[in-house]
Amino acid sequence: MDPPENNIPRPVRCIIKLGGSSATEKDKFETLNESLVSTTAKQLKEAFVTLSGKQHTMDWSRGSDYDQANSLPEDSSYSGFQLDLTLFVVVHGAGSYGHFQAKKGRVNLGDLAEDYVKAGFVATRISVTKLNHEIVRALAKECIPAVGVSPFCAGWSTRNRLLERENVADVQRLLQAGLLPVVHGDAVLDSGQGCAILSGDVIIRQLAETLKPSFVVFLTNVPGVYDRPPSDPNAVLLKEIAVTNGTWKIVDPPEVERGMKVQTSVAAHDTTGGMETKIAEAASIASCGIPVLVVETGSRYALEALKGTPINDRGDWVGTLIRQARSDELDN
Amino acid sequence: MDPPENNIPRPVRCIIKLGGSSATEKDKFETLNESLVSTTAKQLKEAFVTLSGKQHTMDWSRGSDYDQANSLPEDSSYSGFQLDLTLFVVVHGAGSYGHFQAKKGRVNLGDLAEDYVKAGFVATRISVTKLNHEIVRALAKECIPAVGVSPFCAGWSTRNRLLERENVADVQRLLQAGLLPVVHGDAVLDSGQGCAILSGDVIIRQLAETLKPSFVVFLTNVPGVYDRPPSDPNAVLLKEIAVTNGTWKIVDPPEVERGMKVQTSVAAHDTTGGMETKIAEAASIASCGIPVLVVETGSRYALEALKGTPINDRGDWVGTLIRQARSDELDN
Repeated sequence: MDPPENNIPRPVRCIIKLGGSSATEKDKFETLNESLVSTTAKQLKEAFVTLSGKQHTMDWSRGSDYDQANSLPEDSSYSGFQLDLTLFVVVHGAGSYGHFQAKKGRVNLGDLAEDYVKAGFVATRISVTKLNHEIVRALAKECIPAVGVSPFCAGWSTRNRLLERENVADVQRLLQAGLLPVVHGDAVLDSGQGCAILSGDVIIRQLAETLKPSFVVFLTNVPGVYDRPPSDPNAVLLKEIAVTNGTWKIVDPPEVERGMKVQTSVAAHDTTGGMETKIAEAASIASCGIPVLVVETGSRYALEALKGTPINDRGDWVGTLIRQARSDELDN
Repeated sequence: MDPPENNIPRPVRCIIKLGGSSATEKDKFETLNESLVSTTAKQLKEAFVTLSGKQHTMDWSRGSDYDQANSLPEDSSYSGFQLDLTLFVVVHGAGSYGHFQAKKGRVNLGDLAEDYVKAGFVATRISVTKLNHEIVRALAKECIPAVGVSPFCAGWSTRNRLLERENVADVQRLLQAGLLPVVHGDAVLDSGQGCAILSGDVIIRQLAETLKPSFVVFLTNVPGVYDRPPSDPNAVLLKEIAVTNGTWKIVDPPEVERGMKVQTSVAAHDTTGGMETKIAEAASIASCGIPVLVVETGSRYALEALKGTPINDRGDWVGTLIRQARSDELDN
């Protein structure tokens, strides 16, 4: 592979949102959903291998396999995942880590001089970084060069709960170094009120707008976006949605016509992770011309999404494709 | 307490270096020295209480005590550690976390395109952040508002193993918000060679030079600085050392006269944590007019050091005070 031209960053392939309700057992205090996180790590690896044609079997999460690492052949065709060609970012939610502490400590109220807020802030950070650590380790076990990035440390902060400082530049730097940044929703300083919660959804939108990935994948605990709560037996899965400035149109299935207004701004404090927030975030990203795939974590459709296949050909894929509307779709 | 005047940061009280050989069981892979870390957290708390006259008993490390938190009296005299008055930073080494992976993966060689270096980098980061997490949790258990700060995430990086980018500004921001930053030696990006190890000793010098704390404490696994290896039965503890530009003088005991040259620049790759490095770093900090106390972790002398007592009156304190030489000491 030729070295890239100086100062021209390689294009980012995909930003993945791993929802808190997929990564964790949402009702059990600080409990990882090991099975789904492990499956997702394996799928991500398979997506890389498909793209790069290379495969590794080394566990990068501990020190135990280093004799194996040191005895790798010097053959350069075998040197590492070609992440240079396939830049990915993972952003994850908090699920059963952090939410409890943030709520009890009223972190989003923001007055750090209040004892319970400061206590909540400290406890929230301990909890979300613990989850980040678990997810990074699970990815490294599959030989993915994952590195944890805490927005709190990396200079992200809010002002009255809205994003004020971001640091996409350092995420870009890690990507260009061939690493896979794993970012998470976090408790951050707030220049207006003291502290606040910065949700993974706000982070992913900021990353998407700046890094302009080929596509974004939302891994959720339901098969996609429905026209009503998925628990409703009459709920219909929306397979394809075309978005333009502030409005959307359901392309498939064609009989579900609604043309509703979509809210495209979401406050940093909205960490409920509800589907409405997700649609709004996805619509906002799709409006920039970046297709978004919403799919069930761990399913075979998730693997297809990570490979980007359904963007050009949905075939029998089960999930929701949210994309920018073409000009001929705007009038309907 | 009156609010501080705008834009004038409150003075930093103390930067504490918790050595890797104190925080961990150095010969056991990824094993915390729970007893010493816990004792240090308790001592730090006691040092705060002495300074602020306030005391808390809440465990801030989990969510379990939040009902207690929520039922705190609204009396403002009881609101939180007065960390506003007593700004502290903790920097810790890696000990049995990270060193093994960094060495096996030859992280300090820096070529991230090499598979084993990238693997070592990923594994080192997982390991050092795990230790950071444990230490933050131990401090939070003693109601210290500790927050982990990874230099790798926070924009610190090297160029050919020497510090190139630092981010003391964000550490200062956390201090002014009443939090206690817990920073650690880390694997970082290197703009010359790809990646490198940034040692806690380099970080602490940078923090000290910029934040200008009242004093610095090195918590080590020996009682202080000796005139020869402490294992030597003839080794003499040096109680007070006066430093000026590049030279030092042993003030106490007066019979140990050596006047040797001290190396004041230390490469980022020197992570051995040997006493020579420590003296050099301490001398470099003391040259800026910041007294340094070297003391045995967990001892009662460590508590006195954290309170800053031995700076003005060593009394029967056991440890080493390294300070800037007075003009009348320069000629001898």
